[in-house]
Amino acid sequence: MKILVINSGSSSIKFKLYDTGDAAGQFHALCEGQADRIGIDGSTLAYAKADEPKEKFFIDLTDHKVAIDAILKKLTDAEAGVLSGLEELGGVGHRVVHGGEDFTGSVVIDRDVIKAIERNSMLAPLHNPPNLMGIKAMASLLPDMPQVAVFDTAVHQSMPKKAYLYALPRAQYKEYKIRKYGFHGTSHGYVAQKAAEQLGKDLKDLKIITCHLGNGGSLAAFLDGVSVDTSMGFTPLDGIIMGTRSGTLDPYVPLHIMESQELKPAQVSTMMNKQGGLLAISGRSDMRDNVQGAQEGDADCALAIEMFCYSIQKYIGSYAAAMNGVDCIVFTAGVGENNAMLREKILENFTFLGVEVDAAKNNANETVLTTEASKVTALKIHTNEELVIALDTYNLIT
Amino acid sequence: MKILVINSGSSSIKFKLYDTGDAAGQFHALCEGQADRIGIDGSTLAYAKADEPKEKFFIDLTDHKVAIDAILKKLTDAEAGVLSGLEELGGVGHRVVHGGEDFTGSVVIDRDVIKAIERNSMLAPLHNPPNLMGIKAMASLLPDMPQVAVFDTAVHQSMPKKAYLYALPRAQYKEYKIRKYGFHGTSHGYVAQKAAEQLGKDLKDLKIITCHLGNGGSLAAFLDGVSVDTSMGFTPLDGIIMGTRSGTLDPYVPLHIMESQELKPAQVSTMMNKQGGLLAISGRSDMRDNVQGAQEGDADCALAIEMFCYSIQKYIGSYAAAMNGVDCIVFTAGVGENNAMLREKILENFTFLGVEVDAAKNNANETVLTTEASKVTALKIHTNEELVIALDTYNLIT
Repeated sequence: MKILVINSGSSSIKFKLYDTGDAAGQFHALCEGQADRIGIDGSTLAYAKADEPKEKFFIDLTDHKVAIDAILKKLTDAEAGVLSGLEELGGVGHRVVHGGEDFTGSVVIDRDVIKAIERNSMLAPLHNPPNLMGIKAMASLLPDMPQVAVFDTAVHQSMPKKAYLYALPRAQYKEYKIRKYGFHGTSHGYVAQKAAEQLGKDLKDLKIITCHLGNGGSLAAFLDGVSVDTSMGFTPLDGIIMGTRSGTLDPYVPLHIMESQELKPAQVSTMMNKQGGLLAISGRSDMRDNVQGAQEGDADCALAIEMFCYSIQKYIGSYAAAMNGVDCIVFTAGVGENNAMLREKILENFTFLGVEVDAAKNNANETVLTTEASKVTALKIHTNEELVIALDTYNLIT
Repeated sequence: MKILVINSGSSSIKFKLYDTGDAAGQFHALCEGQADRIGIDGSTLAYAKADEPKEKFFIDLTDHKVAIDAILKKLTDAEAGVLSGLEELGGVGHRVVHGGEDFTGSVVIDRDVIKAIERNSMLAPLHNPPNLMGIKAMASLLPDMPQVAVFDTAVHQSMPKKAYLYALPRAQYKEYKIRKYGFHGTSHGYVAQKAAEQLGKDLKDLKIITCHLGNGGSLAAFLDGVSVDTSMGFTPLDGIIMGTRSGTLDPYVPLHIMESQELKPAQVSTMMNKQGGLLAISGRSDMRDNVQGAQEGDADCALAIEMFCYSIQKYIGSYAAAMNGVDCIVFTAGVGENNAMLREKILENFTFLGVEVDAAKNNANETVLTTEASKVTALKIHTNEELVIALDTYNLIT
């Protein structure tokens, strides 16, 4: 069976087609691509078959339906395509950012699911509506195709009250749904499970801290097999320092900035979300640029790295406390998978827990980053959110 | 020598008079009291000699100068007083909330110090101006009396950049002085030093986490003899859950509340500072009331206790990570000194660090709360901010 994975944004749609093979373990990607500038002048479609170079061309994509139609045509194109026809396609899996408290896992999309995603749009006004545009465009083009929604928030719905409630008047939670939701759940859940497999144990029997470190980033704590806390909060702004997001701040700070500088909420939000983080510290939002800058002697880049690592160390420590211990620390996503120096710098403060980094393995980006004697195992695990969406879709429709 | 300690608020002045005795160790309080409703109808003066019952009477206190004059008259009153004359008074120590980046310790007050406290009023608009009113009133009544300022923020000025900078555009720090300052410094510094003495070691050689748990509360981490991080931030709102303060929140939350509920910054500030915390969770801001409620089966009170302890556990864990270990955890202030059940609940998640609570000692509110075998020593130490102010004043003026 073939499964199409869709990540639909406001003006772009990413897609990836999987062949499920004979068994779940043999899933493999056939092609992927991205429609850009949908509804804007100069829209493009990029496309690449697995192991082949990417082609990119201008194409008039006036809306999401036109864009998805173009993607489906490409998939079935006699020359460039990988499907003989759309009847080969078994299902479509969609990334949906916010499931609110309605979804604790992935679901087959029906009218009620669409209503719930709409309802939760107030919690993710920039993400849920474009996610829905992709779902609805696909439904109108292929009305009988099974579609599945996979939520960024679902994995964290297992958090206990003490972790997800804020100490604000209850109406803020009951009426306005303000609580910690957490994000990157698909990634955290996937690498936690992979870590357990790597260690040859049941996830239920492990205390795992997963560090998803990309341009955005978050940590999660897994106890008794489920996420019990995570560093992002009501929105993806909270937690560790990110590329352009400040991470955690004294919650009076945004109000003080508004009042002392006569700014509007939207301006302060932009400052915290788009002009904060590494970008604010060193002028460079990409961690690779900060590493290079620091190597060239730029003190602000060195400070950005120091602050980034410190913010992660503090969350690792707090989750070890939350679980009364930690068996395994997992690094994943761009920075987590590729930057050995940062992993070592983060882990060097955990010798008090018996963490013993194996420098050679860490530098070689191996899966196991610590010595045999290390009391806590650090792992590098490649995250694959599209694959999880494809797997969930397959499992739900078969 | 006699030293008068003053804590001057907007409509109240607390005072305490110390006799320095022959050596610093022999400081003892002679009397204390409080002027209330200054400049408001029905103002009062409360007064008590050490070990004697408190008297409280109505007295017209039109402003801070009148109030301080009344206090000085009471101190030298032929019947109720403890001084034969004001010439016995050697100096006056003032609690000042915000020293900004100007003060890393206590100082003798001169014109420049007053200017600096005024300059930092923008950082503590509710506290520094009334603190200054007390200083100026005293100076106009006793122009030759040495006065000393002791700052809540000074102890935390030792924090490294990675701990005190927020990942916001640099102008927010450079122009607007927005950074982590921390508070309760007088208490944290005092109990950290007392903890080192209790352990018979140099503070410089210990990793100490101090938990100041009162109606307000904060934690601090002491490494190499100085504070390297603390849970309060730019304001006292950040950090752990407090009596009526929310503690840390996703920093987008206050903006979202403003926009979704059409509230003004001051209203959201009130919600977070006065209607949050334990009060928001259970309707009871005092921890003793929550403990009683929980014992009577009130689920919200039990949740308030759980959330309170969890927020403290996470900071302890994060500071252990920040210091790569912890030798000693100190509990102080009302809740920290008196609530054995909460201390035990907080510490029970640290068996992974070898914390072994001695239930009998803890229940008896002894100084040492852990067993001899415990790898981390937990201590209960009585904090005494007035005494620190008196000591600092004495040391600076002699």
